[in-house]
Amino acid sequence: MKRVSLLGSTGSVGTQALDVIASHPDEFRVEALAAGSNADLLLEQVKKFRPRIVSVGTREAAGRIRPHLPSGVKLYWGEEGLVEAAAGTEADIVLTAVVGSRGLKPTLAAIEAGKTIALANKETLVAAGSIVCEAASRKGVRILPVDSEHSAIFQCLNGEPSGRIAKLMITASGGAFRDRSREELTNVTVEQALKHPNWSMGAKVTIDSATMANKGLEVIEAHWLFGLPYDRIEVLVHPESIVHSMVEYVDGSVMAQLGSPDMRVPIQYALTWPDRLPNPAPKLNLAQIGKLHFRPADMDRYPALRLAFESGRAGGVATAVFNAANEVAVDRFVRGELPFLAIDDVIADALESHAPIDNPGLEEVLEADAWARGRASAYPHPR
Amino acid sequence: MKRVSLLGSTGSVGTQALDVIASHPDEFRVEALAAGSNADLLLEQVKKFRPRIVSVGTREAAGRIRPHLPSGVKLYWGEEGLVEAAAGTEADIVLTAVVGSRGLKPTLAAIEAGKTIALANKETLVAAGSIVCEAASRKGVRILPVDSEHSAIFQCLNGEPSGRIAKLMITASGGAFRDRSREELTNVTVEQALKHPNWSMGAKVTIDSATMANKGLEVIEAHWLFGLPYDRIEVLVHPESIVHSMVEYVDGSVMAQLGSPDMRVPIQYALTWPDRLPNPAPKLNLAQIGKLHFRPADMDRYPALRLAFESGRAGGVATAVFNAANEVAVDRFVRGELPFLAIDDVIADALESHAPIDNPGLEEVLEADAWARGRASAYPHPR
Repeated sequence: MKRVSLLGSTGSVGTQALDVIASHPDEFRVEALAAGSNADLLLEQVKKFRPRIVSVGTREAAGRIRPHLPSGVKLYWGEEGLVEAAAGTEADIVLTAVVGSRGLKPTLAAIEAGKTIALANKETLVAAGSIVCEAASRKGVRILPVDSEHSAIFQCLNGEPSGRIAKLMITASGGAFRDRSREELTNVTVEQALKHPNWSMGAKVTIDSATMANKGLEVIEAHWLFGLPYDRIEVLVHPESIVHSMVEYVDGSVMAQLGSPDMRVPIQYALTWPDRLPNPAPKLNLAQIGKLHFRPADMDRYPALRLAFESGRAGGVATAVFNAANEVAVDRFVRGELPFLAIDDVIADALESHAPIDNPGLEEVLEADAWARGRASAYPHPR
Repeated sequence: MKRVSLLGSTGSVGTQALDVIASHPDEFRVEALAAGSNADLLLEQVKKFRPRIVSVGTREAAGRIRPHLPSGVKLYWGEEGLVEAAAGTEADIVLTAVVGSRGLKPTLAAIEAGKTIALANKETLVAAGSIVCEAASRKGVRILPVDSEHSAIFQCLNGEPSGRIAKLMITASGGAFRDRSREELTNVTVEQALKHPNWSMGAKVTIDSATMANKGLEVIEAHWLFGLPYDRIEVLVHPESIVHSMVEYVDGSVMAQLGSPDMRVPIQYALTWPDRLPNPAPKLNLAQIGKLHFRPADMDRYPALRLAFESGRAGGVATAVFNAANEVAVDRFVRGELPFLAIDDVIADALESHAPIDNPGLEEVLEADAWARGRASAYPHPR
């Protein structure tokens, strides 16, 4: 039986992870649940999975939830609460499914505590890949990918040494606006951007799919997870989201992982690896699907993807700046403060004006993150 | 350095195997070359690769080649020659690329001599799967697939235990006549049947692609190589021959191996496994290819495929009968003695009238093979 701590339990990945855990009651025990402000759902989860530790986003949320908790459950809140849920239990594996750069500190804490990491929080490696990978390597901790693309690559590698890899090919649905030209995106609404064609995901990730900032984050994450330079990571638009990603080996052989677009498969694989267990996700029927399409990713059509590659090659704190500026820009778009196309401009502006730092420490990364948030928050509406 | 014996060196797989070996001169040494009647090409190969043993198809062919052999090269002929080339050298690995059931005895001899088998001869496992697998298991000998489909499955498995496999999905191009209805096949010529849309292969295999007898042989071979029952082996028509085959796991995850249709990749993988080395085959460019198509295999359109599944489920000597009847029928079609559609009828007739034998020994398999050849040779032209 594996003991699991789940950070971000009320989000899209978190709820699906609990689906997986519920369907294999003999395989898992939940040690900790951490969520933001969705107290009702969190209480439901607490009653069902009986964790020893619960953490919520704020002191107020903690106050609201406290009277309803079963006795014996320890309650925490805020950043410290996330760290406690990540590192303060007997968990074997910590699934970090919080969104954004707030996933960084608890992930590092879990690594220092020797926990296996099931990583659904891209921003951890994007902001601080060198720091996180150094810590994981020093502690002998494994980072298992949860993202469908990285899980696909992980499955395609299946232990093959990196010397045999020619390149990674990350597939991209192209997002909600894949069939529109850049010109046609000028006045798109938040509602339109939130309609992802294939995947059911949270708002931030869905907007990121439409800009391909998401794919950019995945490219940077793949660079750190699999140790390959950026010129050996490609993005391929694949509208059906059936091939989740691929690996080309030095002999020309290409391994691909396919499946219905259902996050429960990669989430479960991270939790059960190296084993595989039955999964409730619908099975793939290729004969019924009939056709799979592939085309190159157009960096002019998706500037956020180009900027992600540029920030990755620049290194230092550039990827942290890319990520922080994008988080703020998406938030401002969702709140109606910026038009859709300004998201790319906000990222470009922050990258152009940031102060490069070689081999940054955690504090420098967090400073660059904060600086980029300030810069992105002040970016004027382009009217 | 691996020492290789190559049975069938002047055929399609054999010449491509020597291409692979020539491009990695530090990795391989050729111990034996066995061919049929193509003396000129065999002599060229002998001069280039300097094997210790050479074998040809007949005593006459041996007489023709003898005066031209470098001194010190031992010359053999016929079935005994094949066995000598397979088992009588210091080879670590024997690539059995002869066509038809004559591959059976040398393969068994190589297994008894403890050689790793790189198996390009489907008929060995089709005719005598239980005998060959029992011998390989007893001697602790590994059988590595060379066929693109089985190599794909082998790569998709990459050591995963069989308990995690839900099913195998073998892809089929559909052959030269895939876009014709069965009615439109009545008067097709040998020349038309020899035009395979994707792969460059020998005549027998190309005709087998058009009838899908080839895919039937592969289904039976997959049953023995990977130990799965027939109801967990599916055939999927995939006209582009880019996805070479797939494995669905119990969690719904599907692994696929892709590549340009170039036999040098799976041939090399069998020779270098578990390592991978650079290969001259053109690299896959999915963005350029653009689309991949999949559809179910229609057992009414391809009766040979249905008959292969039936013979596999029947077991005993049925698959040997299937294979022998098909070999003769194809030969008679190529010689103009039978129309294309009669190939299926010849196989069906032999299967219907054969005497079932449970757990046959090698002699019983060979007798059933000989009986089926006689029956198929006597099958009347349907006019």
